[in-house]
Amino acid sequence: MKKIGFIGLGTMGAPMAANLLKAGYEVTVYNRTASKCAPLVNQGAKQAASPKEAAASNDIVITMVSNDQSIEAVYDGSEGVLSGLKSGAIVIDCSTISPALVKQTAAKVQEREGSFLDAPVTGSSPAAIDGTLVFMIGGNADTLEKSRDLFEVMGKKILYMGPNGSGAVAKIAHNTIVGINNLALAEGFAIAAKSGLPVDSFLELVQLGSAGSKAAELKGRKIIEHDFTNQFSLALMLKDLKLASSLTDNSGIPAPMLNLAKSLFQAGQTEGYGDEDLSSVVKIYEAWIGQKIGDKQS
Amino acid sequence: MKKIGFIGLGTMGAPMAANLLKAGYEVTVYNRTASKCAPLVNQGAKQAASPKEAAASNDIVITMVSNDQSIEAVYDGSEGVLSGLKSGAIVIDCSTISPALVKQTAAKVQEREGSFLDAPVTGSSPAAIDGTLVFMIGGNADTLEKSRDLFEVMGKKILYMGPNGSGAVAKIAHNTIVGINNLALAEGFAIAAKSGLPVDSFLELVQLGSAGSKAAELKGRKIIEHDFTNQFSLALMLKDLKLASSLTDNSGIPAPMLNLAKSLFQAGQTEGYGDEDLSSVVKIYEAWIGQKIGDKQS
Amino acid sequence: MKKIGFIGLGTMGAPMAANLLKAGYEVTVYNRTASKCAPLVNQGAKQAASPKEAAASNDIVITMVSNDQSIEAVYDGSEGVLSGLKSGAIVIDCSTISPALVKQTAAKVQEREGSFLDAPVTGSSPAAIDGTLVFMIGGNADTLEKSRDLFEVMGKKILYMGPNGSGAVAKIAHNTIVGINNLALAEGFAIAAKSGLPVDSFLELVQLGSAGSKAAELKGRKIIEHDFTNQFSLALMLKDLKLASSLTDNSGIPAPMLNLAKSLFQAGQTEGYGDEDLSSVVKIYEAWIGQKIGDKQS
Amino acid sequence: MKKIGFIGLGTMGAPMAANLLKAGYEVTVYNRTASKCAPLVNQGAKQAASPKEAAASNDIVITMVSNDQSIEAVYDGSEGVLSGLKSGAIVIDCSTISPALVKQTAAKVQEREGSFLDAPVTGSSPAAIDGTLVFMIGGNADTLEKSRDLFEVMGKKILYMGPNGSGAVAKIAHNTIVGINNLALAEGFAIAAKSGLPVDSFLELVQLGSAGSKAAELKGRKIIEHDFTNQFSLALMLKDLKLASSLTDNSGIPAPMLNLAKSLFQAGQTEGYGDEDLSSVVKIYEAWIGQKIGDKQS
Repeated sequence: MKKIGFIGLGTMGAPMAANLLKAGYEVTVYNRTASKCAPLVNQGAKQAASPKEAAASNDIVITMVSNDQSIEAVYDGSEGVLSGLKSGAIVIDCSTISPALVKQTAAKVQEREGSFLDAPVTGSSPAAIDGTLVFMIGGNADTLEKSRDLFEVMGKKILYMGPNGSGAVAKIAHNTIVGINNLALAEGFAIAAKSGLPVDSFLELVQLGSAGSKAAELKGRKIIEHDFTNQFSLALMLKDLKLASSLTDNSGIPAPMLNLAKSLFQAGQTEGYGDEDLSSVVKIYEAWIGQKIGDKQS
Repeated sequence: MKKIGFIGLGTMGAPMAANLLKAGYEVTVYNRTASKCAPLVNQGAKQAASPKEAAASNDIVITMVSNDQSIEAVYDGSEGVLSGLKSGAIVIDCSTISPALVKQTAAKVQEREGSFLDAPVTGSSPAAIDGTLVFMIGGNADTLEKSRDLFEVMGKKILYMGPNGSGAVAKIAHNTIVGINNLALAEGFAIAAKSGLPVDSFLELVQLGSAGSKAAELKGRKIIEHDFTNQFSLALMLKDLKLASSLTDNSGIPAPMLNLAKSLFQAGQTEGYGDEDLSSVVKIYEAWIGQKIGDKQS
Repeated sequence: MKKIGFIGLGTMGAPMAANLLKAGYEVTVYNRTASKCAPLVNQGAKQAASPKEAAASNDIVITMVSNDQSIEAVYDGSEGVLSGLKSGAIVIDCSTISPALVKQTAAKVQEREGSFLDAPVTGSSPAAIDGTLVFMIGGNADTLEKSRDLFEVMGKKILYMGPNGSGAVAKIAHNTIVGINNLALAEGFAIAAKSGLPVDSFLELVQLGSAGSKAAELKGRKIIEHDFTNQFSLALMLKDLKLASSLTDNSGIPAPMLNLAKSLFQAGQTEGYGDEDLSSVVKIYEAWIGQKIGDKQS
Repeated sequence: MKKIGFIGLGTMGAPMAANLLKAGYEVTVYNRTASKCAPLVNQGAKQAASPKEAAASNDIVITMVSNDQSIEAVYDGSEGVLSGLKSGAIVIDCSTISPALVKQTAAKVQEREGSFLDAPVTGSSPAAIDGTLVFMIGGNADTLEKSRDLFEVMGKKILYMGPNGSGAVAKIAHNTIVGINNLALAEGFAIAAKSGLPVDSFLELVQLGSAGSKAAELKGRKIIEHDFTNQFSLALMLKDLKLASSLTDNSGIPAPMLNLAKSLFQAGQTEGYGDEDLSSVVKIYEAWIGQKIGDKQS
């Protein structure tokens, strides 16, 4: 059975590692805050003292961290993944990072005679627990085949997108649509609420009609109830839209809707909503129309 | 059983009138091009020679035409609905027109001692045939109750939105979301295609992930296949976005995404795509990226 | 010497009428608030009791009011300009109104056997006092020639733009540029201030470089000093951008910058800046960057 | 008299170096294409064989190249400026580059015990010849004082903007305004032309009114004459707007107008106008309205 080093035990990483353990893989875990390793050690994992150690004795290394900075912290330096990598190892990063950093990291792994996949996911923490994530993969197709069994344990769908960076690009393009769809919903709600329509009925209409979207399904009722409990934060959405802006600038793609969406989420961030759910961007509109979407009409 | 005058026998109006006939109502039909009356007369309808005559002997008048100009042609003048209206009649317009014209028309109906509902629909021709339209209603709630049986024959859902004009506003706000979601899809596709991703897989990702939408479901595959057969035309979407722009200007609602969407669909119209499906707005992006979304990578 | 009826004695109209008096014309004035007539009567004007009376005995009627509503109030009804118009009279409106209303009003004047010019101005109150306004004229070129002497008294430049409505369109297109240039300045200032640059030096740079504009010249220093004393109000700018949005929608012109500018000025209006100078739109950016443009760095 | 190494003899650099020679400085020149050194050698300059040699024996080194890539080519490597730098030398870069690269380069110069100024300019080639450039300076204020005499030879105005990077930021914020003002002009022209106004008169109006700008002054007539001879290319403007987009993303400044402008210039680039003057962005609008701005109406 393959031996896996798993680095990054947050709300996504911990259940992903747990599913690999359950499926019978030998898993060595590492997390910056070491205490998060305990539950997995109880389920049979070994614990490494550094990313290097997590990489050293394993065939496959998986990383699941939060952003470009974390990737550099985990891969580089004397205690980093790269310094411990075995020749022939497969390295899989499931984080959402910039395509440029993907390519740099892939090159470094290749220098060490390893093979790298960028494999970001969609799906939230319940999907990580249930093993129903969707993976979009960039990298060598053979490397994917050699590690397909792992992805099938962690996810329900594996979409191969092309060479290294393609997984990252797919994630960014996907999230661009998410950001714009959420603004569409916010703007539609603003018109409805300011015009005195019953917003519950309006939401019902949206979901029955051709305006329907996952955004409406996941966030519509919460917006009416002013529940912005974080599922995917406005700050992370803004980060991804900035990655998309940079990507389209580099590729020479005019992307006016994306760029306007970026400006509006940036306005939300400056208003202090960064740590709330991305749907809190609707509060920009609530300030403009002078009422909450869910306010009952007198 | 109620007696109904039904004016406007296009792809939506004809099946709506047919369903009323099937349900046992006495229906008198009128259409500008009289030949379209024949199939309904064969199913038992009477034929009127003018909108006035269609209104004259009936308790309820339903109109289903294409825009503000058609409404004025049907209601006003010596042969118009208004000149033939019985005291106490209920007048229902199912077209998508401006809230301002709704209010004017409602006032004219009231002068004639009638009662008016604006009742635009979502759902395309199959839903009109199956009697599964969604109605959003503006007007007096009692008038709606008195005519609810008709709506239940023609549709699966009746959403009451408030006083006259509210149905029209709901439709406009709904279609604003439709327009923006379609642009989100187009822009996401442009990024994916220009970056060399397999767009089939990308579409699968969108539909599995939180970027999913009716727009992706209804148009995604067609965009890849460059099939822009008209289901709801770009010109009509542009018309509705202009109504929305005017509505938000009048109400003092900042609506930057709507206004940008309007500009992009206007660009599509100037490129000559007005009579194609609204999803053809993606061709703006295809020109920009220099390739079709569905082009295979070499 | 021509006899002139002059209606509307605001900050622009009063000095314009005074210049006509000084040049020797017989001027009959009317203003809704009658007390504003006194200074002009002291300078030799006659006072009329209604727009009708101001029109009745004169060869030329000039109107200078604030918007579409005021035009209708002054022209229509039993005491309106139209009811008193002499056959062969020339009617000149110097207000900024919609091209549609210009055309309607011109048609009504023509029914009365008069001839109409739309003749909006640029230039503020000092230019009205000095007789250095710039006129943009729509209407019959012969009518312009017959009244050119009056324009030369009130202004320094007379630009003929074409048939009725062309003057109004020119004004709207001009003000579209004004609105966008002011936002360009605001956004440039926001970048400079947030980056800690000395904004005085930045303004100097703008005016020396190719970024220079009347907006920078007229508003730059005032923005740094947070002086938003009304010269041309944000509400009026927003009104003109809405006219421009409607005009471009009707003409089928994609105008993305205009439409975004409209949304931003609308945001300014909802924030309560409508009665301040249009340059107060910069306060939207000040809220976003969390500092005033003119704040000294510590 | 100070000894100066001058690197980069393009349309801007050559006359700047010539002015320094005329003022009596000892100048050693270097250019990648060595033949461009000849005219300056004829005027008394020495010629260096590499950036390193141009730096080696001089108190001050000035670089004037085209972009980030050129800077790295000139400064780094065994034949680069840095490898030849004298302790205590002042290094001045007059190119327009990213603030991030300014800071990196400044740090490298400081490691070599030199002092760095970012000193981009506004003004075109005639201003370089006349010595009337405007400099915006980032870096140590003392370093500026020590080299002020040189700037006074080359320019008419020296604006100190703050620590290293501030000169670059000032240039980017300045050019953001230039880009938006040019789009404002294009959009105003589109409205005027499509509405059938005489565009010469409209341009006169713009320049007389509060819509006036350097953009209108420098480009207005050329747009009417469809003369897009390159003065400052659309591609360079797009590059600067991308720098500004990146800068505002990093600083957390919502900049919707800038981002939309970027998308429109990007569209111009994809249409193939990159090597024409930036004012050629108007051709986007000409395609949309189906006529050239300067077309005579029939």
